[in-house]
Amino acid sequence: MSSYYVGVDIGGTSVKLGSFDIEGKLLEKWEISTRKENHGSEILPDIAASIREKVKGEIAGIGLGVPGPITDDGTVLKCANLGWEVFNVAERVTELTGVTNVAVGNDATVAGLGELWQGGGRGFKDMIMVTLGTGVGGGVILNGEILPGSKGAAGEIGHIKVEAEESDTCGCGGHGCLEQYASATGIVRMAKKYMKPDSAISNCEKLSAKIIFDDAKAGDSYCMEIVEKFGKYLGTALSNISCVVDPEVIVIGGGVSRAGQIIIDVVEKWYNEKSMFALKNKEFRLAELGNDAGIFGCVKMVMKK
Amino acid sequence: MSSYYVGVDIGGTSVKLGSFDIEGKLLEKWEISTRKENHGSEILPDIAASIREKVKGEIAGIGLGVPGPITDDGTVLKCANLGWEVFNVAERVTELTGVTNVAVGNDATVAGLGELWQGGGRGFKDMIMVTLGTGVGGGVILNGEILPGSKGAAGEIGHIKVEAEESDTCGCGGHGCLEQYASATGIVRMAKKYMKPDSAISNCEKLSAKIIFDDAKAGDSYCMEIVEKFGKYLGTALSNISCVVDPEVIVIGGGVSRAGQIIIDVVEKWYNEKSMFALKNKEFRLAELGNDAGIFGCVKMVMKK
Repeated sequence: MSSYYVGVDIGGTSVKLGSFDIEGKLLEKWEISTRKENHGSEILPDIAASIREKVKGEIAGIGLGVPGPITDDGTVLKCANLGWEVFNVAERVTELTGVTNVAVGNDATVAGLGELWQGGGRGFKDMIMVTLGTGVGGGVILNGEILPGSKGAAGEIGHIKVEAEESDTCGCGGHGCLEQYASATGIVRMAKKYMKPDSAISNCEKLSAKIIFDDAKAGDSYCMEIVEKFGKYLGTALSNISCVVDPEVIVIGGGVSRAGQIIIDVVEKWYNEKSMFALKNKEFRLAELGNDAGIFGCVKMVMKK
Repeated sequence: MSSYYVGVDIGGTSVKLGSFDIEGKLLEKWEISTRKENHGSEILPDIAASIREKVKGEIAGIGLGVPGPITDDGTVLKCANLGWEVFNVAERVTELTGVTNVAVGNDATVAGLGELWQGGGRGFKDMIMVTLGTGVGGGVILNGEILPGSKGAAGEIGHIKVEAEESDTCGCGGHGCLEQYASATGIVRMAKKYMKPDSAISNCEKLSAKIIFDDAKAGDSYCMEIVEKFGKYLGTALSNISCVVDPEVIVIGGGVSRAGQIIIDVVEKWYNEKSMFALKNKEFRLAELGNDAGIFGCVKMVMKK
């Protein structure tokens, strides 16, 4: 009977699952929806049932990514997106599946580990991953391992303060967080705030980060101005992060990163502009695994146990 | 014959040395001057001779702290303060002393390790050390070990950008570095720049950070304004550092920290003001070992080899 690893990336809307062979090759991936009723109490039983149905063979390990801070022993410290309070996710998954080799990590950090293993960070061991989606997530990987932080909050780089003069409030309650300028939502917010009447997007009804990047590439000067602002804030934040951990490579992923090379160009330019000599000229890469980064990282996390 | 460890903290003016017993107890400390002539080629031979003269017994290991970036294998990547170009310090010390157990680290980072071991960070394992002297140095300690960074520049937190609007240039060539507001030099710079005529320091000829903190404690409102600026910049930078590594404790040392509790009060206040929920309420401590932190950290570094 063959052995398998299973990666489980739990999101607020759906759970992505993937079965991998014992060497770490992705065999099959599928999704189930995230049932958040009753404080999310059905989420883990749904996952266990789905694994039981799909994976016929011995399970060598299950890795899970959760959208919130997770401590070293697999305890979630409240996760508003799923309705979860504090409990040990790893123990619960073992109870439900009988599998003892279970690892749990923060979803953004785990996605970073996936990119390091089989994506944009291949060949490196010290990496900063930044995920530009609805929010800005991050992950710090040192010597091939996720840095969890003392309370599971290492890599929460979306809440680095990059602007002292911001009047709008961030989701965290603070002002001037990176997330307010570098997330998809933040880019749209900036574009609306400073809007110029002669821009291609000035009458756009459903403005998105994608439209802004597309129009910037097409030569719209206002959109390029917004892209520069984005690059300046993100490049400065990444330069500051480098001062702390001095990584080998910075990998940029998440929906916004689909804009492609323009992201690297503008962020790398500002990164070097703001960095001291010893920290200039880092490797910058786009993430390669897209939405699968999480399931890859989940499996990597459990394979090395 | 007894065995000893030796800690060697190399500074631009003097070299501090300490002999420790095999359990890590400081037995004796002394200083020699730093001879920088001939590209600092006499510095290591002077150190070897001094150790030979002072330490009568078997040497179990020598740890050295150097004021510049150091790679994992003990190579210094240029050190302008000492006149050194690139070479392997550890190998050279072994040649000069016959001692094979040699470890080399960045001085600020090593001082952090000393504070973690027998100073302000005792009992913790994840620590950020910030050293407020002529410049601002730092060290990141994770799980009891120094984080060197991919090019030895982890913990260079003095060059985190904290002010987008700075016109003065930092020693690194950048603008708005933490060092321009939180070092002894930076505090004096700020006080002169915004000077108010009715302040206690408005006619002070030899202004120093100590005078500014003393007058702030004595109730001078302008000095308190400068102390608040210092606290806001440093507290914000430490909050941003927390987003990256989520430490257990932040230890503040260096000459400026001799101002005492006022430093913790103002920095902690701004740290919490700027931090997201999961990162508020860290432990803040003053460093305890003063100028000896380096020799302690050097020995700790070599003891665990």
